[in-house]
Amino acid sequence: MSSLRQKIERTIDQGLGREPADLVIKNTRFLNVVTGELAEGDIAICGDRIVGTYESYRGRREIDGRHFTIVPGFVDCHLHVESSLVAPAEFDRCALPRGTTTAICDPHEMCNVLGSAALDVFLESAEQTAMDLRVQLSSCVPATHLETAGARLTAADLLPYRAHAKVIGLAEFMNAPGVFHKVPEVLDKIEAFWGTHIDGHAPLMKGYELNAYLSCGIRNCHETTSAPEAWEKLRKGMQVFIREGSACKDLHALAGIISTTTAPFLGFCTDDRNPLDIAEEGHIDHLVRGAIKAGAPIADVYRMASWSAARGFGLVDRGLIAPGQRADLVLLNDLAACDVAHVIAGGQWVDDALFDARSMPAPVGYHSIKLDKVEPSIFRVPASGPTGPVIGLREGQVLTDFLTLTLPYRNGERLVDLDNDVIKVCVLERHGKRRTIGRGFVKGLKLPRGAIASSIGHDSHNICVVGASDSDMAVAVNRLIDLGGGFVLAADNAVVTEMALPLAGLMSDKDFRTVAREIAALRQAVRGLGCPLAEPFLQMAFLPLPVIPHLKITDLGLVDVDKFELIAA
Amino acid sequence: MSSLRQKIERTIDQGLGREPADLVIKNTRFLNVVTGELAEGDIAICGDRIVGTYESYRGRREIDGRHFTIVPGFVDCHLHVESSLVAPAEFDRCALPRGTTTAICDPHEMCNVLGSAALDVFLESAEQTAMDLRVQLSSCVPATHLETAGARLTAADLLPYRAHAKVIGLAEFMNAPGVFHKVPEVLDKIEAFWGTHIDGHAPLMKGYELNAYLSCGIRNCHETTSAPEAWEKLRKGMQVFIREGSACKDLHALAGIISTTTAPFLGFCTDDRNPLDIAEEGHIDHLVRGAIKAGAPIADVYRMASWSAARGFGLVDRGLIAPGQRADLVLLNDLAACDVAHVIAGGQWVDDALFDARSMPAPVGYHSIKLDKVEPSIFRVPASGPTGPVIGLREGQVLTDFLTLTLPYRNGERLVDLDNDVIKVCVLERHGKRRTIGRGFVKGLKLPRGAIASSIGHDSHNICVVGASDSDMAVAVNRLIDLGGGFVLAADNAVVTEMALPLAGLMSDKDFRTVAREIAALRQAVRGLGCPLAEPFLQMAFLPLPVIPHLKITDLGLVDVDKFELIAA
Repeated sequence: MSSLRQKIERTIDQGLGREPADLVIKNTRFLNVVTGELAEGDIAICGDRIVGTYESYRGRREIDGRHFTIVPGFVDCHLHVESSLVAPAEFDRCALPRGTTTAICDPHEMCNVLGSAALDVFLESAEQTAMDLRVQLSSCVPATHLETAGARLTAADLLPYRAHAKVIGLAEFMNAPGVFHKVPEVLDKIEAFWGTHIDGHAPLMKGYELNAYLSCGIRNCHETTSAPEAWEKLRKGMQVFIREGSACKDLHALAGIISTTTAPFLGFCTDDRNPLDIAEEGHIDHLVRGAIKAGAPIADVYRMASWSAARGFGLVDRGLIAPGQRADLVLLNDLAACDVAHVIAGGQWVDDALFDARSMPAPVGYHSIKLDKVEPSIFRVPASGPTGPVIGLREGQVLTDFLTLTLPYRNGERLVDLDNDVIKVCVLERHGKRRTIGRGFVKGLKLPRGAIASSIGHDSHNICVVGASDSDMAVAVNRLIDLGGGFVLAADNAVVTEMALPLAGLMSDKDFRTVAREIAALRQAVRGLGCPLAEPFLQMAFLPLPVIPHLKITDLGLVDVDKFELIAA
Repeated sequence: MSSLRQKIERTIDQGLGREPADLVIKNTRFLNVVTGELAEGDIAICGDRIVGTYESYRGRREIDGRHFTIVPGFVDCHLHVESSLVAPAEFDRCALPRGTTTAICDPHEMCNVLGSAALDVFLESAEQTAMDLRVQLSSCVPATHLETAGARLTAADLLPYRAHAKVIGLAEFMNAPGVFHKVPEVLDKIEAFWGTHIDGHAPLMKGYELNAYLSCGIRNCHETTSAPEAWEKLRKGMQVFIREGSACKDLHALAGIISTTTAPFLGFCTDDRNPLDIAEEGHIDHLVRGAIKAGAPIADVYRMASWSAARGFGLVDRGLIAPGQRADLVLLNDLAACDVAHVIAGGQWVDDALFDARSMPAPVGYHSIKLDKVEPSIFRVPASGPTGPVIGLREGQVLTDFLTLTLPYRNGERLVDLDNDVIKVCVLERHGKRRTIGRGFVKGLKLPRGAIASSIGHDSHNICVVGASDSDMAVAVNRLIDLGGGFVLAADNAVVTEMALPLAGLMSDKDFRTVAREIAALRQAVRGLGCPLAEPFLQMAFLPLPVIPHLKITDLGLVDVDKFELIAA
């Protein structure tokens, strides 16, 4: 008899109560996200699926559920594991105990550095993680033609992965201008995945452009930042994922759209969230908590965190506490507070022993910073006059403003204006391809002195450095090269603090608790320099992303995102 | 350039409004089933999909939409086309103009007569119909071991069809006792379709049995007849399809469960509905109308008729009026009355020209009645005494009661009791296999004289005959044999009226309007004999179905459905 057949027979016997179930949570209370009711009784589990509710069951293992309220496991609808700054194995340890039993990730950060080798290691990892990690195929590597990435993934590169059990479809289709302009290699991907699942990415997109984008079969968006924007997307049938990352925080603006009517068309995601924030605030549980606190109906919030999210990806085997569904359960101390006590993932009790039992693949991506040391003079910004474009940073958003400002100007060189919070931002190609460098200015980072260098610079992950002084910028970049990637904070011609991210220059090879401590130290150090921003590292890491309006910078120079072209500094 | 690529480029150009759309419905009003709002404006269509809403569009063809309210095309979640008594081509002509743009059919009636040849002809037909006809693979042919069918479909017979573009999964899994008893050939099918879509069939199922059934991955039920039954199924995550066929009418009992909370987990279906009822009352539009009349919220009713239904089958490309969705549109004269004026199916205006352009396959299934003429004596019911089981028919339901009644008894033979509305019911094997005949009594048909014979007798479709007189029963059966199948009404030793169904003994080879007229004539004739039932032909056709509680009859004899075994007459 096949092992599947044995499983089917055990499922029937245990569902009928003819045999004791593998695991029973006795006398508990759970939220039924179909009816919105609180139910009482037992939950019986056979292997990885629920086989009984609303009846009394015996179990080979029984857990006293009296003190818990149980909800279906949460789905993170869109995230980049790399943004947790740890490898998938550690992300699993970090996020699963918060109730995120399914995570839909796009490994495009690592793909931009390593190409399809990154897909391979993510898929190998996904087969081992205790959470169900799904890997969308990165659609935009590089994100645009306006930057230099470490790799390029064409439709032909992605097709061999399409049928992998952990793949749902194509990841966030960021190159919307490429769609509207019918760029051949962009349409190659739409064509290759026509009729299958394609995730969206449509910040501020509206009107005819939104219509054309959706007409290509693109289904959802996690880049919505205002309620009117969300309503247009919903009205046009687009699933809206409310995001609360470390850099982007959209819940406050969007919680008001959640209702019984809209909940089936919504979901939550973190996109980019670091382990310190996960430790301090939570993961999807943080969004659930915040939405309820903002006044959204409790049952609808939990429905969108589980069922609505899962169905949006065609995952019909989860999102409900019901027979036949995956036993992904979050045991809460309190429903309204979303206070997670324990988690069951695919029928397994989540604890250290579960994580220790995984056979994770060896980390990859060491030695990915291919750049020679730099002199301070490389950061000079020659210009024809004092007035020019400046990136206007918005705190807590990845959207920027296109400012035109008059700066100090000397010897044909435009200079920082510290009195007005304008400092330099430069992006250095680091994949050993073109040795290009983009130079510009940013207002709003509130860094009064020193410099910060980062090997995280979305999405090509060239080295991004911001600074009030060219020499501190050089110190920071040169130390970053020695570290093999990471974050470096310099001031007064010396390194103040640093954090190594040697895996593709994106992720630490340490455990998530150590990484959380290192981030806390970095935050403290940057505040010590006088910068009050909550997340200056992440905010600067998005300055090079030329698919988010309005003004960005890559290794090739400043990018007017609305015109989708490079412009002079 | 591939034709798909051309389509993608046209989609983008037309969605952007850069080129005129293929078809634009101008200045119309439509129901947005995402938000529940009525929207105003244009609907732009390119090929088979919507490419624009909420913006103004030019079209190569423009339709004035001012007088319509438009809703998404309806999905019939479960039906047997054979029960429309016409071939798929005529069903398409009959139901599509009522707004049913997608129909999920199970061809198990024809499969019970012809085996996989019926799947072949349904799939060929589905590739031609103007509606999107989807064909579920019949899971229970024969329905049980308690009857003789014309064919047997095993898991191995079904597997070659699994990947067909028109196939979603396995059709209604009727053999629930086979699941609970772990019958090998039943579990073969569960195993073969594990993790894919399996439709349910769970009349009165509850408690542990419902849990075990759902645990096998079975997802929905169209056999729910009371609100408490529906609530248990919903609470256990089962999608409930509210049915209103010609024989089974569940809307009245179930309309009260429809709410904004439950609508995503509901759907409508017709199961078995003849063309006279479709002509007189409607198809899914009849259910929509009835649900609204019963007080269900309008937007929720339309949501469940389209989006909820489609998503329940993994059809993510339809059910909304939104860019990227199939252009399946129902143009209504009135929203609350669901008064259908016109239909657009996959971007095509539905009219006679559209139907005439199809290339339907030739009809199959002639000469399927393999039975010799009978004598009246064959219908005698020998018995050991006057008291025995009698099928208690419930008007408008396929559920029956298990009655034990004392009947007139003479010479070792139990007899009809016309004063108490008890007549004979017999089932004659007609596939040329065993020449078996089952004999019994039925109360509730209200046929005071004569006999009715039918070659429709779910699901094995042996000849079912009911009658107040053995000689009329013989006249009716013998004429049915000459016709090659159909319905025959006899009285006073002569045929009163008849209707030929020569395709597998199930379907007419005439057009649906002729068939509707023939049914009207049959109804009138049976009323002329004194029978007041609305649907005596369909009611009797379900008497042989031994998967519906409580007492049924097959060619092998009376079946106690609850015990799932044959019993003495």
